[in-house]
Amino acid sequence: MNVTIRPATEADLPAIHQLVRELAIYERAEEQFTADLDTYRADFREGAFEALVAEEGGTVVGMALYYLTYSTWKGKMLYLEDFVVRPERRRQGIGRFLFEAFLTQAVKRDCRLVKWQVLDWNTPALRFYERYGALIEREWWNGKIFLSDLKKNEFV
Amino acid sequence: MNVTIRPATEADLPAIHQLVRELAIYERAEEQFTADLDTYRADFREGAFEALVAEEGGTVVGMALYYLTYSTWKGKMLYLEDFVVRPERRRQGIGRFLFEAFLTQAVKRDCRLVKWQVLDWNTPALRFYERYGALIEREWWNGKIFLSDLKKNEFV
Repeated sequence: MNVTIRPATEADLPAIHQLVRELAIYERAEEQFTADLDTYRADFREGAFEALVAEEGGTVVGMALYYLTYSTWKGKMLYLEDFVVRPERRRQGIGRFLFEAFLTQAVKRDCRLVKWQVLDWNTPALRFYERYGALIEREWWNGKIFLSDLKKNEFV
Repeated sequence: MNVTIRPATEADLPAIHQLVRELAIYERAEEQFTADLDTYRADFREGAFEALVAEEGGTVVGMALYYLTYSTWKGKMLYLEDFVVRPERRRQGIGRFLFEAFLTQAVKRDCRLVKWQVLDWNTPALRFYERYGALIEREWWNGKIFLSDLKKNEFV
């Protein structure tokens, strides 16, 4: 495996948009995915989101998409909106590399917390996060809201 | 009543910090409020959050604190993190002015959605949002996650 983790550029947006579509299909909600590629391009230029991509042989095989948010009780928080590895490339450590690169971004920005949500039937994802000792903040509709305090975790 | 709604400046941060403390007390969770005023100052300068304040006779009597987030399915979303009017100044329309100014900010930034959360025992807040026709996106722990599609609402 020769996978590079790097910040996404505008050239990666078609691949990112396609991965989000595949994630929407996996979450059984493709009809709710209405943002088009031009919207992504304009919003990325404006800084509305950032992403890390995992690239292998010129192909994007995974990505973590995030943005800065704020907890008025705790301080800066990096929110992981989407996190996906192509199905055929799973279980090879790419998710771990991406997730750890995301945590590194949060530390670089002096964030106090990272946060993300998981559907409760997504067992592989839940197992993945449990290995990181992530805290479940709240039960939510058909999923869980995870919250990790960067200052208390050892793994960063 | 002579209330002005305007964007917050750094000089408003002590009042905003105090309002967040009062909100944490109202939500029975003051011990979880650990961010200090210096943290607010540094994070506000960096653009981690923005706020609108309601000012009356030189005093901040309410505020709406928000930041830009992203829905990879829909596009740009303005997230209302904290929204509070001083108890003695409630039921006088200040909340309505603030909330509508927040919606105007979302429209100005070409956001597709606005989003916020409410504790389910906060009946006055729930009633307030119901009047705006806000959609409840998800049930969550001890509250609700509201989501409004700006393109479908008439009230903006």
